[in-house]
Amino acid sequence: MSENKASNQMWGGRFASGPAAIMEAINASIGFDQKLYAQDIRGSIAHSEMLAQTGIISTDDQKKIAHGLNTILSEIEAGTFEFSARLEDIHMNVEARLADLIGPSAGRLHTARSRNDQVALDFRLWVKEEMQRVAVALERLIEAFLDRAQQHAATVMPGFTHLQTAQPVTFGHHCMAYVEMFARDLSRVRDAIARADESPLGAAALAGTGFPIDRHMTAKALGFREPTRNSIDSVSDRDFALEFLSLAAICATHLSRLAEEIVIWSTPQFGFIRLSDQFSTGSSIMPQKKNPDAAELVRAKTGRVNGHLIALLTVMKGLPLAYSKDMQEDKEAVFDAAETLDLMLAAMTGMVSDMTVNEAAMKKAAGSGYSTATDLADWLVREAGLPFREAHHVTGRAVALAESRKVGLEKLSLDELQAIDSRIDGSIFDVLSVNASVKSRSSFGGTAPQEVRRQIRYWRKRLKRGA
Amino acid sequence: MSENKASNQMWGGRFASGPAAIMEAINASIGFDQKLYAQDIRGSIAHSEMLAQTGIISTDDQKKIAHGLNTILSEIEAGTFEFSARLEDIHMNVEARLADLIGPSAGRLHTARSRNDQVALDFRLWVKEEMQRVAVALERLIEAFLDRAQQHAATVMPGFTHLQTAQPVTFGHHCMAYVEMFARDLSRVRDAIARADESPLGAAALAGTGFPIDRHMTAKALGFREPTRNSIDSVSDRDFALEFLSLAAICATHLSRLAEEIVIWSTPQFGFIRLSDQFSTGSSIMPQKKNPDAAELVRAKTGRVNGHLIALLTVMKGLPLAYSKDMQEDKEAVFDAAETLDLMLAAMTGMVSDMTVNEAAMKKAAGSGYSTATDLADWLVREAGLPFREAHHVTGRAVALAESRKVGLEKLSLDELQAIDSRIDGSIFDVLSVNASVKSRSSFGGTAPQEVRRQIRYWRKRLKRGA
Amino acid sequence: MSENKASNQMWGGRFASGPAAIMEAINASIGFDQKLYAQDIRGSIAHSEMLAQTGIISTDDQKKIAHGLNTILSEIEAGTFEFSARLEDIHMNVEARLADLIGPSAGRLHTARSRNDQVALDFRLWVKEEMQRVAVALERLIEAFLDRAQQHAATVMPGFTHLQTAQPVTFGHHCMAYVEMFARDLSRVRDAIARADESPLGAAALAGTGFPIDRHMTAKALGFREPTRNSIDSVSDRDFALEFLSLAAICATHLSRLAEEIVIWSTPQFGFIRLSDQFSTGSSIMPQKKNPDAAELVRAKTGRVNGHLIALLTVMKGLPLAYSKDMQEDKEAVFDAAETLDLMLAAMTGMVSDMTVNEAAMKKAAGSGYSTATDLADWLVREAGLPFREAHHVTGRAVALAESRKVGLEKLSLDELQAIDSRIDGSIFDVLSVNASVKSRSSFGGTAPQEVRRQIRYWRKRLKRGA
Amino acid sequence: MSENKASNQMWGGRFASGPAAIMEAINASIGFDQKLYAQDIRGSIAHSEMLAQTGIISTDDQKKIAHGLNTILSEIEAGTFEFSARLEDIHMNVEARLADLIGPSAGRLHTARSRNDQVALDFRLWVKEEMQRVAVALERLIEAFLDRAQQHAATVMPGFTHLQTAQPVTFGHHCMAYVEMFARDLSRVRDAIARADESPLGAAALAGTGFPIDRHMTAKALGFREPTRNSIDSVSDRDFALEFLSLAAICATHLSRLAEEIVIWSTPQFGFIRLSDQFSTGSSIMPQKKNPDAAELVRAKTGRVNGHLIALLTVMKGLPLAYSKDMQEDKEAVFDAAETLDLMLAAMTGMVSDMTVNEAAMKKAAGSGYSTATDLADWLVREAGLPFREAHHVTGRAVALAESRKVGLEKLSLDELQAIDSRIDGSIFDVLSVNASVKSRSSFGGTAPQEVRRQIRYWRKRLKRGA
Repeated sequence: MSENKASNQMWGGRFASGPAAIMEAINASIGFDQKLYAQDIRGSIAHSEMLAQTGIISTDDQKKIAHGLNTILSEIEAGTFEFSARLEDIHMNVEARLADLIGPSAGRLHTARSRNDQVALDFRLWVKEEMQRVAVALERLIEAFLDRAQQHAATVMPGFTHLQTAQPVTFGHHCMAYVEMFARDLSRVRDAIARADESPLGAAALAGTGFPIDRHMTAKALGFREPTRNSIDSVSDRDFALEFLSLAAICATHLSRLAEEIVIWSTPQFGFIRLSDQFSTGSSIMPQKKNPDAAELVRAKTGRVNGHLIALLTVMKGLPLAYSKDMQEDKEAVFDAAETLDLMLAAMTGMVSDMTVNEAAMKKAAGSGYSTATDLADWLVREAGLPFREAHHVTGRAVALAESRKVGLEKLSLDELQAIDSRIDGSIFDVLSVNASVKSRSSFGGTAPQEVRRQIRYWRKRLKRGA
Repeated sequence: MSENKASNQMWGGRFASGPAAIMEAINASIGFDQKLYAQDIRGSIAHSEMLAQTGIISTDDQKKIAHGLNTILSEIEAGTFEFSARLEDIHMNVEARLADLIGPSAGRLHTARSRNDQVALDFRLWVKEEMQRVAVALERLIEAFLDRAQQHAATVMPGFTHLQTAQPVTFGHHCMAYVEMFARDLSRVRDAIARADESPLGAAALAGTGFPIDRHMTAKALGFREPTRNSIDSVSDRDFALEFLSLAAICATHLSRLAEEIVIWSTPQFGFIRLSDQFSTGSSIMPQKKNPDAAELVRAKTGRVNGHLIALLTVMKGLPLAYSKDMQEDKEAVFDAAETLDLMLAAMTGMVSDMTVNEAAMKKAAGSGYSTATDLADWLVREAGLPFREAHHVTGRAVALAESRKVGLEKLSLDELQAIDSRIDGSIFDVLSVNASVKSRSSFGGTAPQEVRRQIRYWRKRLKRGA
Repeated sequence: MSENKASNQMWGGRFASGPAAIMEAINASIGFDQKLYAQDIRGSIAHSEMLAQTGIISTDDQKKIAHGLNTILSEIEAGTFEFSARLEDIHMNVEARLADLIGPSAGRLHTARSRNDQVALDFRLWVKEEMQRVAVALERLIEAFLDRAQQHAATVMPGFTHLQTAQPVTFGHHCMAYVEMFARDLSRVRDAIARADESPLGAAALAGTGFPIDRHMTAKALGFREPTRNSIDSVSDRDFALEFLSLAAICATHLSRLAEEIVIWSTPQFGFIRLSDQFSTGSSIMPQKKNPDAAELVRAKTGRVNGHLIALLTVMKGLPLAYSKDMQEDKEAVFDAAETLDLMLAAMTGMVSDMTVNEAAMKKAAGSGYSTATDLADWLVREAGLPFREAHHVTGRAVALAESRKVGLEKLSLDELQAIDSRIDGSIFDVLSVNASVKSRSSFGGTAPQEVRRQIRYWRKRLKRGA
Repeated sequence: MSENKASNQMWGGRFASGPAAIMEAINASIGFDQKLYAQDIRGSIAHSEMLAQTGIISTDDQKKIAHGLNTILSEIEAGTFEFSARLEDIHMNVEARLADLIGPSAGRLHTARSRNDQVALDFRLWVKEEMQRVAVALERLIEAFLDRAQQHAATVMPGFTHLQTAQPVTFGHHCMAYVEMFARDLSRVRDAIARADESPLGAAALAGTGFPIDRHMTAKALGFREPTRNSIDSVSDRDFALEFLSLAAICATHLSRLAEEIVIWSTPQFGFIRLSDQFSTGSSIMPQKKNPDAAELVRAKTGRVNGHLIALLTVMKGLPLAYSKDMQEDKEAVFDAAETLDLMLAAMTGMVSDMTVNEAAMKKAAGSGYSTATDLADWLVREAGLPFREAHHVTGRAVALAESRKVGLEKLSLDELQAIDSRIDGSIFDVLSVNASVKSRSSFGGTAPQEVRRQIRYWRKRLKRGA
């Protein structure tokens, strides 16, 4: 055997005091896991009540414990609690203070429990509650879009493919596309909440315990559907956190698409919308300039959420069971992703609600680029019975004529159109304007205003039902 | 305006023929999307039937179309179909061949449809079917673990924290931890299938259509619960693919943990298991050497799945609605992740089923490191009524004595133990052996063999119920 | 001990033949590592020459080996070589064929070598050559931008912040920004080539060898600067691959920004450029529509490169030394990232060279939005000595006046301007037009045409120097 | 046009005060960018000196500015400066305070500068300095390994492939593998520093400026090699941050491999090393238990660094030039990755220096598993002239004999070996022991102790040279 001591002078700067400073910096989690204080105390109270009811500890001890914990809760919420990095984490900070407050009875609380199931519980409670917050925020965003869709069920704008004008749609219909996306996000959150709804408390260090505990009792007291079924799994898996990060990343991706649209729509070139002053910044010398800062930040923060997802996937990769200290890295990723997602949702709800829509600019753009050419071709197939290929050929000639005359398709005269193909009649004008075009697309889920209104009613009813 | 032509000599090697070669290389998707041929043909047949039933095309045309498509299906499955990169993608390859086979009627198929909803349909069908395959594979893996757990419900092994022996558990219990993980993966797959179970067919380019189509009919014919509700969303979102990649990444993470354990357990130092020759490779000159190649590859392939998830999240980030060509990048990521996950699940099911368990080595390791020290401490609290801190103190002294005598705790005599604390009596030996330890941990979800067997029965019943 | 065999019926579909099929599917690498054939053969020839020169094998054996290997090279390049999945990888495929061709002498080739250093060599050679290809492609892209910059050194366009018009710049200056980015990418590639320029051949399995080999000789023969210095590191690290993926991801990020600009500039709303038909697709019925497919695909493929980077980082995370089979996953990620990056660079070089610039649209947009307001404010500070705050105040009033009159700043009369602030004189008009504005910004690296031309000369000279 | 106001009651919890609270939360960066205070002030002082020297501002104003800024620096370092979220960022916080302190002269500082080049400068300075810190930390880690390698140049341990014993190596040689890895990391850092060594100051908003500034003067004053060459690139790219994150991720990957080895080596089953109490945690009741917490945390934190890399790559993907607010997301990713990497390097240096090596356990493991079988085969080829295949066959028989007799190869008698192959003579025992094996592998970079010592001397000399 050989041994070797690092001389202290090698630790510069921040770690001048040597290994102890490094170990405290890398090991202590109190800097971030204090966020779990309420969950930790709630879990401990539920645990103590179960211990008393099953006779494992005395009712007297339990009362002291509960009183002490409630005192600590008040202290933390009042900002008078002193967190100590030496005590490493939230559990030991609370435990040490409880011993100060109530003496030896404090020790009884740790019967049939370990820090492993305690932290698994606290973190799961926190993630569950966060997911409930996200669900509410998603509902608000959906409602903001439903309101917008209602206002603009018949407002015509260009439907883009490749960011090129393809066909006219209504702005209400475009809004309803986001309703569908965020409703799927909401559905993912609800599934994840249901899957995480099991209490790990009582798994102890990893093997369960010989004390006659009642895990169903604590599960119920803490609002869980049931206790987890395997003690090793209970302390070693964090897939509920990975699932939250996954759904957050997908939701953030949806938000980033909307943010990109807001940035593009806000350019002077598009001019489709104008953000409120609340969500943009200006220039002292260019008063007409409006920077869509909030939208840009929402777009960017997608990266942050994706990064946290990859971080935790990487942490968990190849980790043998049961608990490894690596898993302490689960929290900051989730906390920051949660705060980020909450903020993105709130900001986007605000922008959607507040923005001014320039209907005229939208309509003008919708009509450019011969966006109703496919309507003309469809009419030729549907009404005049032309085969597809021929219909396309005729349409191409009509567009070419309109282009040479620098007018829209609907400005060509019937004579001109019939000169191209004699089977065309006056009813063609029912589809050549952008308004006619959108009105005609009344297939289920299509952009026709009455169909958009039907979609809105569907979602209002479904949200009311809570589904 | 100014124009500029690249001279052809600037394109070296692969792209010597200039822009055309580059564009074909970057643009054509037939190299990978031919995988969608069956879905494409099935979707087209369903679409043609609906067009005929709603009177949009004639029954005669529909029959020709269906016959032609079935011919193409046979050609592809027989390997006689010639795919052409010039025709870019699977849709145009099939379409062109259909025109060859049946002439102008082929064109009728494209009524009220666009490549945008067509590819959305094909890809969604494929992802749904892949998720159904993953569900079956997960059930098999779970069954392999249930069989193992049954055999080893009472086989003692060390329960690790920090890869250090912490407390004895049973190998069956350890197997059941994986049952829980993979059952959650299964539950995630099922939720994702349900969420993706909507048919985008009929969304057309992005705005719906003016033809009187019946989207409920095609949805039903293709096995979907219902049609999608918004045409823009139908062609522009790929969150079903992102959700599949997310759940694949979480499942792969679970598999990587198991793979890591197999690698560690297979070392001569641990020697807990021996992989079958089927899943390991040897050395011509070191016949005792067994390299756990399959486990290492499963562990590694997690990276690949995570990579594909990040790839598609990055592709979709900030993409304006509705369809952009960027979305063509969705397929290879999903196809390769699917093939990888299928392979990882099959390999792991094989390894779990085939491996030889060295019970003696497990038991020996379980007993080392004073793994029942917490049992002793718990006994002192539970049976002798000591407060926690004191129980820990007594236990520490007993361990120190055993260590100095180089024996296990259960080899200390009652006299020796009572010399440390007189409240100890003979029933202490009921918890000091590893067998006694695991037997005592009979709390719900604990490692006691009877509890493990209860967990197994629960899961066998639940799987039979299909839940 | 207990043993358990999977019954074959459990393996469905692809793996119906059971574990053997699974193991072959997961273990064999010949499907992708055949790409390394040229490097493998080159390495083997160099190794055999060194063995002969150091007297480890006979000259006669060496001649047979070299002749056999060259025959195999011809067979592979002629497409007549039959690769076998049973022989797992490229090394064993070549080795088996060599034994067929030259008999027992083939075995001598493996003296003082192992598959571990062989694959490390082959892969490193491939990555080095790919990086040399990337360097050439980057030079071509830079040259394409230099040509564009030269043509448009004085073409005015809006400089954007937040995608809002901020100040006029020249299109040439904008092009030169990309020259800087891609030149840094080029510099990163060159640094990476230099760092990877060490030959691992001779590291053997992991510990070096007792044969009196000359690693400097093989290093030199294979074009490396020197041999690696540590045999364990030689077979266990893949940071040269990670570094390639990192620089590819950064370069892809630069390309994605350019791609996004091309997509936005190609919209009818912006209309700054028009891609050539070579790099866009049209619509049979909307002839004016130009979808920027190639740009969208370049933008999207960034995700793929990022994904491969994360994949390999995840593979290598926490892998103990020396060789683990996990490392077989290094190749496909790198091969696909390389092919993707090559394609992105070629496509972008083509688009930049081919696109048509609409100078009129750029200039018109440059002048909108009072983009010279900061020029006015700067003039007030510089020429009239106003403090900043006051200059901003005066400018704001001038912009407000121009806005109310719906004209540009340069259309206000001197009288009107002097009514706002009497210190203004006629020389103000030297900065109020967009041409004057860009001309005035002649600070080092600024957008003034003469400064842009200086930047172009600098880069032409530096590229000629090869730096 | 239509407008819509969000009613305040919709904002719950944290954002109860509505849009203003949301916008401040998403927009203000002072919470994290105050970390840049020193760089910001240094940059401003250099700028003011240049402005005075070029006559753009008066010497008197410059003196006031410098004095004010130094006062602010003292206030911040003394903790008496009050940061305000209303003032958004560090630049405006400093600017506002400067105006308080020195009045109107403060405004002169912003001549010929914008927040865009200011933040680009501050951040680049910070990243450069962080990379210099990382370089020093890497040198310390390398020195710790060199010391270890020197102590253990001849300490035999198993060389692993697939975590199975493959061939004996020395622990010193294993340490030197890490020296190579971290030396490459160091080389990457130095290349990145050189590439980032250009000053963006003077790029102004994005277009440069009309003031007669001297950018070479400020570049020199701030320790940069030269000014950047293009003003748009200067404010729009962050590849220096991406490059830092990339090299950090690669370095973290190296650290994670070492961490994994420490965790495995610390298990009772391996027992190769014992971490000092400084870097591990124990158990109050199992005094022999040592949890390698610090190594586990280093391993885990790799995920965090990878996550930040992906985050910023995602942020920058597809961002049009020049400045977008998205880029504000660059800082937290880099700050946290930097802090994480610093900590990982310090902790690992500490662990490497402090750990106790169990030479006996290493040697015992090195000799198990017939790890010298390849030495035997090599001897047969080298000394007895057998062809490879035959040498392998003979070796296999010798190993089988030793296995059946449950002894190591070196315990077989010469008679027994000669009975297998008569060409074997007594010199065979020179390679059959683990010590003889490692001694024999004296090829360049091999594990022979004298070769390891040569490697150590090489690196000590090279580090002294600063290369």
